[in-house]
Amino acid sequence: MRRRVTPRRVVAGARPGSVSSLDRGLHYGDGLFETLPVRNGKPVLLEAHLDRLFRGLDSLGIAPQLTRKKVETAAHRAAAGLEKAVLKILVTRGAGARGYAYNPDLKPTLLATWSPWPEIAAEHARAGVNVGVCHVRLAVQPALAGLKHLNRLEQVLARREWQADWQEGLMLSADGHVVCGTQSNLFFVRDGALVTPALTECGVAGIMRDMVLRCARDAGLSTKIHRVAERELARTKEAFLTNSLIGLWPVRRLDGRDLTIGPVTRQIQALLYEKACVVSG
Amino acid sequence: MRRRVTPRRVVAGARPGSVSSLDRGLHYGDGLFETLPVRNGKPVLLEAHLDRLFRGLDSLGIAPQLTRKKVETAAHRAAAGLEKAVLKILVTRGAGARGYAYNPDLKPTLLATWSPWPEIAAEHARAGVNVGVCHVRLAVQPALAGLKHLNRLEQVLARREWQADWQEGLMLSADGHVVCGTQSNLFFVRDGALVTPALTECGVAGIMRDMVLRCARDAGLSTKIHRVAERELARTKEAFLTNSLIGLWPVRRLDGRDLTIGPVTRQIQALLYEKACVVSG
Repeated sequence: MRRRVTPRRVVAGARPGSVSSLDRGLHYGDGLFETLPVRNGKPVLLEAHLDRLFRGLDSLGIAPQLTRKKVETAAHRAAAGLEKAVLKILVTRGAGARGYAYNPDLKPTLLATWSPWPEIAAEHARAGVNVGVCHVRLAVQPALAGLKHLNRLEQVLARREWQADWQEGLMLSADGHVVCGTQSNLFFVRDGALVTPALTECGVAGIMRDMVLRCARDAGLSTKIHRVAERELARTKEAFLTNSLIGLWPVRRLDGRDLTIGPVTRQIQALLYEKACVVSG
Repeated sequence: MRRRVTPRRVVAGARPGSVSSLDRGLHYGDGLFETLPVRNGKPVLLEAHLDRLFRGLDSLGIAPQLTRKKVETAAHRAAAGLEKAVLKILVTRGAGARGYAYNPDLKPTLLATWSPWPEIAAEHARAGVNVGVCHVRLAVQPALAGLKHLNRLEQVLARREWQADWQEGLMLSADGHVVCGTQSNLFFVRDGALVTPALTECGVAGIMRDMVLRCARDAGLSTKIHRVAERELARTKEAFLTNSLIGLWPVRRLDGRDLTIGPVTRQIQALLYEKACVVSG
């Protein structure tokens, strides 16, 4: 079941391991991606990831001729035979002539690549993580908010702000609201309700965020999605981060202040494992 | 002197015509670019473009080991033998493992590619252009403002807003200021002074914008750089657009209102030709 742990690339419409130097993904970030776990040869929650991917493609008018079947097949081919790995699916508008305008008949680029599983994630899921607040802010752009597009320089800049001391950095929006981590969504408990920031201005609407909201509602917990002022962070006593790879990471330290890993956090975490949304250890 | 008019790619550190499918330029837009004219085998204003490119690389911590000499050589090689063409230089942080964090020793990707000269530009320089205002706005991001980076989805979305009726679309910032065109900078005349929007929140600081400001000052014209409210557009009687390829395009119609191509516009245009900053016809 195990294969050698060097990244393998399955590239549709290009030589393996490469894309055209004229690809609009490279020139403009004109595309979208999904990152998801592979467990025992199967991409986890692939349907939900494909739903989001195709919503994004539709929203940006990218790859109108790309079928869900084709992406699904590429994902399954990349995942086949892998016990535990990270699968990344990337779709761009394709290779085209110079300029922001594009020919709607461009052949999209589809990449399905895998990389080794980050084993550290399980330890953080148990013991919790130290989360800081980044100086770099997320620009407010409703036209792109929620989408997992390829314009990620803000995250690259934010990720440079820490080394091993934090496990994740929270990002505020330009107008001072708490939005998400560089690679995760934020939840916190307030007055018995589970709160996660609205993502109508910026941020990525995570698949695991959706799963958590669903689990919480199923369990009878009240959930709230709204804009979160920065000062809320100082009042937070219980918080966690989510994404498709890490599952749920309890926050044990937030912006320099110790938190207790709380009962709601452990309840949601248990529900995610139960529903097999999360790849443990 | 003429070569066949199909794009040629000179790629350093990769197979010609392709880049690694793990390139951070593709995955995150983690890079910068320059676009400039080639005339009689020489890249026009290459020094100024290299200055901006290296300021950007420095600002984002990209390719610290890349030498100016190497980019210069690639540019000259790509331009050699071309009578008139467009040269694009693109530098990314290189191909790396998944994730926003990066190894500072990554080998940067350097691309120097050329494409055919857009002959239509000269006609617009003579007769002026019709310029509309885009609905898509530019997000405010001081950490990236002014840089010609590879996160260009906003421009791609804005460029979809028109067909042949406009020649360019102006973009406002999220907070309602006039910033620039999708691929050009804006100048207008107000009370005898030449005004161009400040680019501290968003927008690209064009090389031709710099040249125009310099020409205007040399000619004794007063220049002003400040934030420009949207309502200023309705009061504007004389305006023009600039970029390295088009040089200067007078605006003959602005947001549905006819303008007269004015004396300041023609004076600046003549100065740019005189200084050989602009490739005519």
